[in-house]
Amino acid sequence: MSQSGTDLLLDLDAADRGKLRLRLEGALREAIRSGRLPGGTHLPPTRALAQDLGISRGTVLQAYGQLVAEGWLSGKRGSGTVVAAPSNTGGSPVEQPEPLLVPWRFDLRPGFLDASSFPRLEWVRALRRALGEAPDDAFGYGNSQGQLALRTELASYLRRARGLEVAPRDLLVTAGFTQSLGLLARSLFAAGARRIAIEEPSWRFHRSILRAAGHELVPVDVDDHGAQVDQLETARDIGAVLLTPNRQHPTGVTLSADRRSRLLRWARGTGAIIIENDYDGEFRYDGHPIGSLQGLDPAVVAYAGTASKTLAPGVRLGWLTLPDSLRKPLIDAKRLTDWQTGGLDQLALAELLRTNAYDRHIRKMRLRYRRRRDTMVTTLAAANPRLRVSGASAGLNVLLPLPGGEVEADALAAAHAAGIGLGGVAADKYYETGRGAGLIIGFAAAPEHTFPSAVDALADVLASLDP
Amino acid sequence: MSQSGTDLLLDLDAADRGKLRLRLEGALREAIRSGRLPGGTHLPPTRALAQDLGISRGTVLQAYGQLVAEGWLSGKRGSGTVVAAPSNTGGSPVEQPEPLLVPWRFDLRPGFLDASSFPRLEWVRALRRALGEAPDDAFGYGNSQGQLALRTELASYLRRARGLEVAPRDLLVTAGFTQSLGLLARSLFAAGARRIAIEEPSWRFHRSILRAAGHELVPVDVDDHGAQVDQLETARDIGAVLLTPNRQHPTGVTLSADRRSRLLRWARGTGAIIIENDYDGEFRYDGHPIGSLQGLDPAVVAYAGTASKTLAPGVRLGWLTLPDSLRKPLIDAKRLTDWQTGGLDQLALAELLRTNAYDRHIRKMRLRYRRRRDTMVTTLAAANPRLRVSGASAGLNVLLPLPGGEVEADALAAAHAAGIGLGGVAADKYYETGRGAGLIIGFAAAPEHTFPSAVDALADVLASLDP
Repeated sequence: MSQSGTDLLLDLDAADRGKLRLRLEGALREAIRSGRLPGGTHLPPTRALAQDLGISRGTVLQAYGQLVAEGWLSGKRGSGTVVAAPSNTGGSPVEQPEPLLVPWRFDLRPGFLDASSFPRLEWVRALRRALGEAPDDAFGYGNSQGQLALRTELASYLRRARGLEVAPRDLLVTAGFTQSLGLLARSLFAAGARRIAIEEPSWRFHRSILRAAGHELVPVDVDDHGAQVDQLETARDIGAVLLTPNRQHPTGVTLSADRRSRLLRWARGTGAIIIENDYDGEFRYDGHPIGSLQGLDPAVVAYAGTASKTLAPGVRLGWLTLPDSLRKPLIDAKRLTDWQTGGLDQLALAELLRTNAYDRHIRKMRLRYRRRRDTMVTTLAAANPRLRVSGASAGLNVLLPLPGGEVEADALAAAHAAGIGLGGVAADKYYETGRGAGLIIGFAAAPEHTFPSAVDALADVLASLDP
Repeated sequence: MSQSGTDLLLDLDAADRGKLRLRLEGALREAIRSGRLPGGTHLPPTRALAQDLGISRGTVLQAYGQLVAEGWLSGKRGSGTVVAAPSNTGGSPVEQPEPLLVPWRFDLRPGFLDASSFPRLEWVRALRRALGEAPDDAFGYGNSQGQLALRTELASYLRRARGLEVAPRDLLVTAGFTQSLGLLARSLFAAGARRIAIEEPSWRFHRSILRAAGHELVPVDVDDHGAQVDQLETARDIGAVLLTPNRQHPTGVTLSADRRSRLLRWARGTGAIIIENDYDGEFRYDGHPIGSLQGLDPAVVAYAGTASKTLAPGVRLGWLTLPDSLRKPLIDAKRLTDWQTGGLDQLALAELLRTNAYDRHIRKMRLRYRRRRDTMVTTLAAANPRLRVSGASAGLNVLLPLPGGEVEADALAAAHAAGIGLGGVAADKYYETGRGAGLIIGFAAAPEHTFPSAVDALADVLASLDP
């Protein structure tokens, strides 16, 4: 859940601009090698590409120059830069070894998944089968709420796996949590809400979505028992609260049972809506699974789930339960936004759920993530006994609290210098009014073969850290 | 482009509610036969399903009862209605003949495509190949503007096929025209615009999208040369105008060359944005292709294209050119809306474009649609020489003007009684302030084997019409 934009070719994470030229070169080599940029293709002028990517023209000039020198590109005066024709003779670009494109040498960013874990084969198989059997209506202007077949499978899955109290008619299929939150924010605003409470700390991008819909934000502090519900009880005119009760992001804390009861009582009493962001609830390693808030009172909770952590963020599929008061406004808002979520993706996901391939994939990944979690916790503890990670019993990242923004900045700089990508509580502005610092270390992004070295590299960095 | 919602199972077009029970039965039989509702599945309670579908509980009760009688379902007191277990003995549900589910016996609705025309094989093949070669970043939080590989292919296609003046950096990939228009409407509003001009007549749903973003609408009349640009010249404070210059919907008129020049001059002079909705520009049968307005002045035109008519509406893919003044606001708005369009669909479309499978599919469909157009125009002219269709030189529907709303209502009622679905200018509220009537007859929706009988059935209805 970094805020950096990622292109097909380039991840232009601001923190990583020092390596931009190398990564641009790698991306271009990869595109030429794979045939996406065939021989003879005119590359964009350096000025245009620089503007497109938001980087300096000098960086692009250097990258082009390097690739011309390597024979991937040819530059002719007056005709711009062109992809060199492939050749089967020795020394041709296609036979040169080239680095694989990875955003970081060691990718420990939170919110990202190892792309090679995406179940490509299963997805294509599910889509092919679903397309063969799909009723004609699946290709048309479909139900804005989502295809009934998908909602039926999702309802069954969510009851079983997440303890929801939900029927197909209570679900809205969306293009992911970003859209779910935007639809909620606009529907709540249209219904008169003006103030939405949000955990402090929280992911900055979500605050942007709520503000873009016109809301004022009210911070709710988080302690070891989760969000401090008593702060909601004393606040005025709160239309909704956005929470991560299963596993607070980024602290990893679970909302306590006592707070859950108080929270629901508060919502029932004030008419406020609880937005339950269950972004990675499928992954719990220790203790019992935590049921959803929605299952306790569907009328006041809008539960939001996503395929971003179970399949891949790029799939862009999410789901939202419909509290009665927002049912019609939310479906109408979805229709006005994009009519419906992509029909082919809906078909494929319904088929993955129907055949239990979705469950099997999650079980497989849960085992892998649990092993990674164990490796990371053990290795980091051994490297520097003064450091203690938190939030490791579930989810896809841990938090390593640090005493202040300066220590965090030093640690991030050292990590970046070692080629490690990861998140920072202060650097990524998780706190808006309060203060806090720490490293957010994801263990789902690195490819399987680089994960052990990534953890070792981080351990080296942290070994010399003196908090 | 009807406003009816379509579920996976049911098209609940309001005009067709008389046949709801039969269609619900057909949908359930189809779902059971295809295995989407396996034996033992508990069907939703009648009350819940009725509410879900927005129909009466009595209709659902009757449908369930019929299917129990037929052996598809079994109803047990206290345990609800359950899908009967399949059996291979004679008389089992799976061996009974059952009607195919079609929304109408003869589907001549505008805006819909024959779903069997969707290139399923090519799509799956493209996706499989693209997934095999996709860089890891394609599965992550990608570039909100759209994958560079897709924008590169789209730019090349749009320059070649639609005369656009566009580079990859000038394109935004969206989830279809609905989203493109919503993003534009919100970005223009944020930039201070409050009044948007729109053709009269126009599709009502687009007016809803603009109004939902806060805009006041200013109607611009349409005559035989297209939108009457002089009305824009005398209007005040117009932030943008939404037009269908290639083929006005629903009249089928093309905006004249003279009007195009005046329109661009007006936009340059006032700073207004022209939203060019090129919804079916790929399909022209007579005369030369009409170039885009965008190609004449990219700085004042936001060109919007879609795969809804070339592939299928359910795919939910569109694209938008970025006038300089709206470039950053539009990309930011897209990011806040759903971060990016579904990555797998982007990969597949890029691959279809790269291999020219997209062009081949369009050429094939253009031939088919031209034949259908010829059949329709000839048959209807022979049936009733007093009727004259217009807008037949391009696109996927024709307009049959009628002298008033009452004649239209009579014609629609007769068509519906004959099992024909089609659109009505008055019935579908294409005019907001003005008056006009006529049938909007689509020739892309009917399956190939029913199209000739659909046209014959319509000819029978129209033969007795005395306008």
